[in-house]
Amino acid sequence: MSKTALPLSEVYRLLEPGPVVLLTTLWEGRSNVMTMSWHSMMEFEPPLVGCVISDRNHSFGLLRMSNECAINIPTVQMADKVVACGNSSGANLDKFVAFHLTPEPARQISAPLIAECYASLECRVADTGMVERYCLFVLEVIAAWIDPAVRNPQTIHHLGRGKFMVAGETITLQSNMP
Amino acid sequence: MSKTALPLSEVYRLLEPGPVVLLTTLWEGRSNVMTMSWHSMMEFEPPLVGCVISDRNHSFGLLRMSNECAINIPTVQMADKVVACGNSSGANLDKFVAFHLTPEPARQISAPLIAECYASLECRVADTGMVERYCLFVLEVIAAWIDPAVRNPQTIHHLGRGKFMVAGETITLQSNMP
Repeated sequence: MSKTALPLSEVYRLLEPGPVVLLTTLWEGRSNVMTMSWHSMMEFEPPLVGCVISDRNHSFGLLRMSNECAINIPTVQMADKVVACGNSSGANLDKFVAFHLTPEPARQISAPLIAECYASLECRVADTGMVERYCLFVLEVIAAWIDPAVRNPQTIHHLGRGKFMVAGETITLQSNMP
Repeated sequence: MSKTALPLSEVYRLLEPGPVVLLTTLWEGRSNVMTMSWHSMMEFEPPLVGCVISDRNHSFGLLRMSNECAINIPTVQMADKVVACGNSSGANLDKFVAFHLTPEPARQISAPLIAECYASLECRVADTGMVERYCLFVLEVIAAWIDPAVRNPQTIHHLGRGKFMVAGETITLQSNMP
């Protein structure tokens, strides 16, 4: 894997800006990829991430059974594949094959990472207490990987109905916050 | 107010891309502004938004008591004020005065909106069941306002330690998703 380990204390810096992510799962030998925008950091360290995954999604069942997933972060170069994953269901399609995504073994979970994504977070389900009411999974990130060659990743951010904002320039201000 | 009403079914398009927002609260005549990045859509309509607000923040108590707040979305033109709000506490400072933010009356809640922000969402606390464990408030958006003159808002997205990504160009792809 061309990615290197990212300290868990830095994970929030990848998810706070709100990128569209690709969630990968595996159960009984079948993997899946789901496009997702409804996520938020919930704790810095260990990093907790809240994700809303509708029970109409094929990934819902895979996550429910396996209690593991990876959050993979794509950039605009992969935008067509990201939308293709969102437009289809893993119930009747192997999206890795159909959309030429390269599965990459994770270190601590069985679900595959996506090689084409510049960062991947290995997660275990930490709390299912809000799944029934809100389809909200609390995930703990247990390992994080990032491609050190990607400096200012052009993440994509969903604006609805196929419109995405692409990450633009960065600015730095004097902040006391983490 | 120069903003016009936005249908509640469109609210997700403002929050999904993950902008830094300014949360405004009011309790017993005292208002406050808090800078926040930990939020996620949880339901389309009525729009539910999950927000993690640390109990170390002054706004936590104000929200707990009033059960109301507004989510105001700034653009890069206000970046210095956004960071200033994050660097200070409302416990000993009126941030509206200190940082020249203009309070604007809301329609359905007592907390003020921020005139300088291009969009404002009036919210009521819908579920406090996850506050004790995660400081997670489930908010229902009950009214939404947007400045129709702002086309591609240059929202800012926190990358940690004072670094922000500014919204760049937009792209449109053929998507079946909302």
